Amino acid sequence: MKLLIVNPNTSAGMTRAIDEGARRYAQPQTEIVTISAARGPRSIEGYYDAVVAAQATLEALLARQAEFDAFIIACFSAPGLYAAREALAAPVFGAGEAAMLMACTLGHSFSIVTTMQRSRPALRDLVRLYGLEQRCVSIRAVELPVHALDDDAAATRALFAEEGRRALDEDGAEVLVLGCAGLSHLDKDLQRELEAPVLDGVTCAVKLAEASSGYGLRTSKRRGFAALPTAP
Amino acid sequence: MKLLIVNPNTSAGMTRAIDEGARRYAQPQTEIVTISAARGPRSIEGYYDAVVAAQATLEALLARQAEFDAFIIACFSAPGLYAAREALAAPVFGAGEAAMLMACTLGHSFSIVTTMQRSRPALRDLVRLYGLEQRCVSIRAVELPVHALDDDAAATRALFAEEGRRALDEDGAEVLVLGCAGLSHLDKDLQRELEAPVLDGVTCAVKLAEASSGYGLRTSKRRGFAALPTAP
Amino acid sequence: MKLLIVNPNTSAGMTRAIDEGARRYAQPQTEIVTISAARGPRSIEGYYDAVVAAQATLEALLARQAEFDAFIIACFSAPGLYAAREALAAPVFGAGEAAMLMACTLGHSFSIVTTMQRSRPALRDLVRLYGLEQRCVSIRAVELPVHALDDDAAATRALFAEEGRRALDEDGAEVLVLGCAGLSHLDKDLQRELEAPVLDGVTCAVKLAEASSGYGLRTSKRRGFAALPTAP
Amino acid sequence: MKLLIVNPNTSAGMTRAIDEGARRYAQPQTEIVTISAARGPRSIEGYYDAVVAAQATLEALLARQAEFDAFIIACFSAPGLYAAREALAAPVFGAGEAAMLMACTLGHSFSIVTTMQRSRPALRDLVRLYGLEQRCVSIRAVELPVHALDDDAAATRALFAEEGRRALDEDGAEVLVLGCAGLSHLDKDLQRELEAPVLDGVTCAVKLAEASSGYGLRTSKRRGFAALPTAP
Amino acid sequence: MKLLIVNPNTSAGMTRAIDEGARRYAQPQTEIVTISAARGPRSIEGYYDAVVAAQATLEALLARQAEFDAFIIACFSAPGLYAAREALAAPVFGAGEAAMLMACTLGHSFSIVTTMQRSRPALRDLVRLYGLEQRCVSIRAVELPVHALDDDAAATRALFAEEGRRALDEDGAEVLVLGCAGLSHLDKDLQRELEAPVLDGVTCAVKLAEASSGYGLRTSKRRGFAALPTAP
Amino acid sequence: MKLLIVNPNTSAGMTRAIDEGARRYAQPQTEIVTISAARGPRSIEGYYDAVVAAQATLEALLARQAEFDAFIIACFSAPGLYAAREALAAPVFGAGEAAMLMACTLGHSFSIVTTMQRSRPALRDLVRLYGLEQRCVSIRAVELPVHALDDDAAATRALFAEEGRRALDEDGAEVLVLGCAGLSHLDKDLQRELEAPVLDGVTCAVKLAEASSGYGLRTSKRRGFAALPTAP
Repeated sequence: MKLLIVNPNTSAGMTRAIDEGARRYAQPQTEIVTISAARGPRSIEGYYDAVVAAQATLEALLARQAEFDAFIIACFSAPGLYAAREALAAPVFGAGEAAMLMACTLGHSFSIVTTMQRSRPALRDLVRLYGLEQRCVSIRAVELPVHALDDDAAATRALFAEEGRRALDEDGAEVLVLGCAGLSHLDKDLQRELEAPVLDGVTCAVKLAEASSGYGLRTSKRRGFAALPTAP
Repeated sequence: MKLLIVNPNTSAGMTRAIDEGARRYAQPQTEIVTISAARGPRSIEGYYDAVVAAQATLEALLARQAEFDAFIIACFSAPGLYAAREALAAPVFGAGEAAMLMACTLGHSFSIVTTMQRSRPALRDLVRLYGLEQRCVSIRAVELPVHALDDDAAATRALFAEEGRRALDEDGAEVLVLGCAGLSHLDKDLQRELEAPVLDGVTCAVKLAEASSGYGLRTSKRRGFAALPTAP
Repeated sequence: MKLLIVNPNTSAGMTRAIDEGARRYAQPQTEIVTISAARGPRSIEGYYDAVVAAQATLEALLARQAEFDAFIIACFSAPGLYAAREALAAPVFGAGEAAMLMACTLGHSFSIVTTMQRSRPALRDLVRLYGLEQRCVSIRAVELPVHALDDDAAATRALFAEEGRRALDEDGAEVLVLGCAGLSHLDKDLQRELEAPVLDGVTCAVKLAEASSGYGLRTSKRRGFAALPTAP
Repeated sequence: MKLLIVNPNTSAGMTRAIDEGARRYAQPQTEIVTISAARGPRSIEGYYDAVVAAQATLEALLARQAEFDAFIIACFSAPGLYAAREALAAPVFGAGEAAMLMACTLGHSFSIVTTMQRSRPALRDLVRLYGLEQRCVSIRAVELPVHALDDDAAATRALFAEEGRRALDEDGAEVLVLGCAGLSHLDKDLQRELEAPVLDGVTCAVKLAEASSGYGLRTSKRRGFAALPTAP
Repeated sequence: MKLLIVNPNTSAGMTRAIDEGARRYAQPQTEIVTISAARGPRSIEGYYDAVVAAQATLEALLARQAEFDAFIIACFSAPGLYAAREALAAPVFGAGEAAMLMACTLGHSFSIVTTMQRSRPALRDLVRLYGLEQRCVSIRAVELPVHALDDDAAATRALFAEEGRRALDEDGAEVLVLGCAGLSHLDKDLQRELEAPVLDGVTCAVKLAEASSGYGLRTSKRRGFAALPTAP
Repeated sequence: MKLLIVNPNTSAGMTRAIDEGARRYAQPQTEIVTISAARGPRSIEGYYDAVVAAQATLEALLARQAEFDAFIIACFSAPGLYAAREALAAPVFGAGEAAMLMACTLGHSFSIVTTMQRSRPALRDLVRLYGLEQRCVSIRAVELPVHALDDDAAATRALFAEEGRRALDEDGAEVLVLGCAGLSHLDKDLQRELEAPVLDGVTCAVKLAEASSGYGLRTSKRRGFAALPTAP
């Protein structure tokens, strides 16, 4: 299977991290290409960034749609995901959605640990959009902006461990979901420390893309994601 | 109050219709300017259109933000609404949200009558985003694309009357919400025929903008809509 | 527009405060008359009070229905609201409902700050009746009975500021709703201190009444609020 | 146990029917007294009626509270139920609530078959107030006003049988709840015909009152139903 | 009425305690027989125990179904309850379900206080299965395994009192439900100390069985609990 | 990866069909062993069957747990799934859960088409247990008992096609989930005819097991699925 991963922001470092994370657990026969949006924000910190990134992501997906069997939008909230499902024939996966669905098979409940407090309302809306509000017991934030995640790797890791532990102990989460792409290097490390599954969204999306492709599944074109005559 | 209404699509006819609809019930002291998105789809028929329209709408709003006291995104699903609330200091209203909130004061329940069957899943998600799923009893569609609404005015009106009647009789709706901007000319006419309130979203948004502005209200900047340092 | 505001309790001081609050942001052309229930409790502290107040409020509304274009029940939980919508032809607004609906346009979520802990279950039921449980993140109480709100204005203000701050910081509220009529003098003051919108219900009801009347809307008479042959 | 049943309307015929229904399955040691509200509507057809009936019912309950161990409000929607729980020390039961709770032990789901279409929104709100919306699959109405239920007993019975059958066959109900007091004579007859449990609310309330009294239970006075110093 | 109570575990001490608890408030004419499952775990601490106990409980019920008018599964989560409703003609009650339904008549909300933290997800699922998630405000655990409940009676009582008080004060519960069979001796004692209703599930099931039997109710056989030709 | 699939019923024909279905889209490196429960019902038609099958399934899983990396319970409602997650260290998948989660990535909504009307309440409870009630728009049944599915293959296929089409056209489903194991041969055939994704649960479970195993995920042992000292 040929898989295109689009990082919706323009940070080359983030794109590299996503690519590395995605390859770790991919099947040998999965060919992965990871690209950045051609324009837009260096990191997606809010709604306005997401709108700009959504269009840039769609342009990147459409430009190369003929070459790939499946597509991943490698940002937790996956800007443009539903538009991509409408515009493309092949299946499309979002990092956050993939992690939340996988989490449902591992425990009664999950928590999302994300970067900024300000993102919590949007993530709650995302959980509700996916209809998973009964499974997500909390959304916590370490209060670090995306661009600062790499400034001090040990401090970042410690903050995620701390909020993750609170989610497990205080909120009753059984599974943790990393609420930002580009943190894949933390998953197994935190999992060992916290003794609970810790899921990276892009990795989950790769595995669901392989699963879906392996079964020959494609996005339903029956109603809401039907192709439009006017679509690009 | 100075009020900027942005039609997120590029149809000049639709912009004119929105402008006329908006002025009908505005207060004399409300100064209305209605503009189109500078680029993007001629009508918003799906998710991809909405992504493109969202960015164009935000550009239009940001370009003229200093001149106005309040803003309206004149499309039922209001692409870019939350991004506009984040990016702007003054309050922003979406047509669909405004109509649904006003409907809540007039009856136990409302139905949305929209143009295309394919839009129903997205509208259901919109109703859930606004947290109004307990009040919205159905979403019905006349199965006419937006661009064909003006082809035969009498036929369009008859289709909306028919679906509206079904919503009232079969679904138990007490109030009807027109699920598309540019249909404001139908509201009072259908209301008389169907003997139930029929709400146009842009008109409701104008009235809520006046109400909000009259009370000096502005978008909360406490968490999810806080301004970003990186925002335009 | 001629607007009748009924204070469902018999406290003349509260009626004066409501009248003053209502006039602050009303349009010049809105003629406001504020009256008290003719009998019943001096303040509404529980369910029994609300039952008595509901009937007294309805009597007050019905006695003067011919003179007015719209009506407001100036108590947060608006005893008799649905009965008034059934009995009257013109639109009727409740203070709490109005504030909650306006709050929905300003932030992702709101909290209600009310007087007594004992009222919290009834307010939760009210939020559920209005179908707004997805938007209301908490209901907090300062634990002051209504009749004591005026004993020490500075202390009252401080208590509301403290609980409001907790709602914003701990519960993730983005907007605050004052859970009692007669507190309108606190709205802008708390808003400045807490840097978040603070809404007074009666004021919101006045603005929604103007909005609704401006658009020519009236309560739906299709099913649940249809006039009864046996009605007064 | 001494049990006071209050019919919230003033129809002597209805009071007799309620009394007869209540005695059918009561324990021998249960002493039942059934009275009417002293004033108010002859039947409760809408919200206004319910407000008037609520106060009259509370007056009737309070006047004789010292003589009884438990109380029943013998109307499906039980006007004044929560006020009575607040005002009285002994437990209070509502007909509709009792039937719905008993229904939960007999099947996955129940339907309410009531008199008028116009009551359906209020009953839906009642089901939500009781938090039973996951168990109630439909609310159907025979479209007969309460006062006409006795005009043609066979026709009334046939209408309830017809709507009951639809609830079972089309809505997937497993249990039927009669949505009006005064229909107790229909329960076993319809049960035989429809081959499904058919519950009368007043009878269920009698049985729950006996159950509750037998275990020595009383209304919680911890928060929302705590007695008020100002209460009668 | 003849009532069979099955303790789904094999602890003779627990069976005795259940039997004693059940008889305290039963009507004189209720004949109670309490038996243990013939095989299976000594206490039900998790899902695996519950599966084994479910089958053993069903065998016990089926072996003696002809002798009794009603049946109780005397474990809070009542393993096999829905299977028993399907397999038996007479009504079947579960301890937890009965307590939660009775709690709904005594307050706005209840909390469950159970033994182990690990049971909280399963109890939350149980509350959701019964459709009572709007009424249950919290599930708390004292962190004592079932088999240790009798080791130090005073300590056990103190732990339940402490968590019960937190449920009332911090979670807003108005009624407490003991989340384990075999704790019936604590109900009235804790009720006096905490000044709120405290319900034992088996006792509530006895009272509901008497109520249901008194009204001649039986499990609906319309759809989900219909008898199977292949059933034992 | 070594994968054990347990058919919870004792039908050898069903076990063969499950095995064949499971192998169709498995990765070459996935070693699949499919076995039957050693005792219990020949097909699972109701709750009692499911209780018996749950224990037999757990025995089968536990007997061979050391040999495999992941486990599948090959029945739509997966009797014993949560007990297996508690008892085993390696991940366990249920057919229905897997299909529903995969469906969420392909459309806004799915419907389940199952065998018997009587199973609909239990499947609704299953959907609610998984927290997917916002995504599942209907549960339909062809009214064929499991044991009759093979009697007339063409008729069975036609019945599923008919109900599937109704789910798509009338209920707004975008994806169909086959509500019974042993129907895997229908998936692609129906998919072509109905032009919508049609998912077989066992196949989805195989693909999710591969995905989960590929990423090194295991069931969380933090709270509800923690191993018990008393467990087998």
